[in-house]
Amino acid sequence: MAQRIQITIVGVGLLGGSLALALKKQKGVSLVGWNHRASSRKKAARLILVAGSFEEAVKKANIIVLCSHSSSISASLRQLVSLVRPDTLILDVSSVKGEVVREANRIPGIGQHFVPCHPMAGKEKSGPSFADADIYKGKVVFITPLPKNPKSLVQKAFRFWKKVGAVPVLTDPRIHDRSVALTSHLPHILASVLMELYGQNQNRSVVFKKAVGSGFLDFTRIAAGNPSMWGDIVEMNAGEIKHFLSQYRRRLNELEKNLKKGKIRYWRDFFEKTRDLRERIS
Amino acid sequence: MAQRIQITIVGVGLLGGSLALALKKQKGVSLVGWNHRASSRKKAARLILVAGSFEEAVKKANIIVLCSHSSSISASLRQLVSLVRPDTLILDVSSVKGEVVREANRIPGIGQHFVPCHPMAGKEKSGPSFADADIYKGKVVFITPLPKNPKSLVQKAFRFWKKVGAVPVLTDPRIHDRSVALTSHLPHILASVLMELYGQNQNRSVVFKKAVGSGFLDFTRIAAGNPSMWGDIVEMNAGEIKHFLSQYRRRLNELEKNLKKGKIRYWRDFFEKTRDLRERIS
Repeated sequence: MAQRIQITIVGVGLLGGSLALALKKQKGVSLVGWNHRASSRKKAARLILVAGSFEEAVKKANIIVLCSHSSSISASLRQLVSLVRPDTLILDVSSVKGEVVREANRIPGIGQHFVPCHPMAGKEKSGPSFADADIYKGKVVFITPLPKNPKSLVQKAFRFWKKVGAVPVLTDPRIHDRSVALTSHLPHILASVLMELYGQNQNRSVVFKKAVGSGFLDFTRIAAGNPSMWGDIVEMNAGEIKHFLSQYRRRLNELEKNLKKGKIRYWRDFFEKTRDLRERIS
Repeated sequence: MAQRIQITIVGVGLLGGSLALALKKQKGVSLVGWNHRASSRKKAARLILVAGSFEEAVKKANIIVLCSHSSSISASLRQLVSLVRPDTLILDVSSVKGEVVREANRIPGIGQHFVPCHPMAGKEKSGPSFADADIYKGKVVFITPLPKNPKSLVQKAFRFWKKVGAVPVLTDPRIHDRSVALTSHLPHILASVLMELYGQNQNRSVVFKKAVGSGFLDFTRIAAGNPSMWGDIVEMNAGEIKHFLSQYRRRLNELEKNLKKGKIRYWRDFFEKTRDLRERIS
């Protein structure tokens, strides 16, 4: 009989809980969960066997997935490096990779365990009660290995993500952080600023509220994301976000000058170009 | 037997075609369609009986719905005022109301016929092939009457929209234009600018393309809208859009200054406020 492998999920929230549901279906897997806060452990216990302590949760694990916020990863790695088995694989799911990689590179021995990952999966709802076994299906998972990662460890990470239906993609942490700054972090800020502006105006007339249609709801949906997770992301990827936000703001400035009568051709051309770009991605 | 009423749809595209599908189900209604372009008439003929000429389409109509772009409404009204029956109700569905109302006020006699309307319904796809009988169900339709509209005419407009499942809401054209500038026109520009920035970067690395997740798709969906319709909207509502775009851009400028290390508290507070606002609207 094949040996059972233990997979431990640290931070059983939306992504961790979804992993638990996806892995539950697999044979030969024992799942263990852990959350640092007692109140979160209570919620986690509805989905997964929760260990009595962090040490207990991780010491026998074959695979540990850190699903807590970006800013907590390096502290967890420092603890784990002396607790885990020699062959334990550690993964994370955090949205910023450059700083996670830089900090991991300073932890002696962690290269034998930790392969940084970022699945492009999620919802605007947080917490294990929104967990979804299919959340990773068909989704890209960026993998940004450490220079000291053995090839076999990275391959193990690939296999892990494939098993839950995801599509692992190898990349460089800087390119990763630049890309998601444009496709995820900047849009999050833009949607949030529109919500703020809406909040300042919504009580001027009932018409503002009635004028909320499906376009506005789609555009602002991401603004409902977890504020403390997003605070972490902006803190850790500020440079890349600034790069694009500054370009974006300068372009708005140019467009604003063309908000006057007689510019219909200018706007039609602009919208034609951007419509074509949008149609090509979906 | 009750007399049949003739409803004529001018501009059988997405919204006009959807009206045709919704009205087809109703007893006692004869539907007639018209498009100015021959190629559009051909497409319209798959959904509705198309008249041989504009005059023929409108002269016996009890209700005429102008579903063509905002910029074409006043020219159509000038033609219609001398063609229609004395009791014909004319409606439009265009997204900007201030300029439509101002121009209509200059057409003698049109107050006996024309009630300006704007249904908050639509899709990012154009043309009658995307028409949907349920597109108006539960959707707000703003009605901004002309000063010379008889009360009974406005009531007739209300009844028309209720019959296709919509929720008519009476308002002032200026408040309308300001509200949709914030909830629809500004977001359209913002999503388009992000698409443009994405277009400038997408070929730098395959990672940019792989980093497109559901959040980016939701945020940019509106950018797929009809460019010439959106050119019209920006031309006709430039002042109100500028009002909000300028506030938006100044806020981005402020936020940009806080894109640096050590501002995590600032960003968490900002995202907490905007998350709360977003959760309250859906």
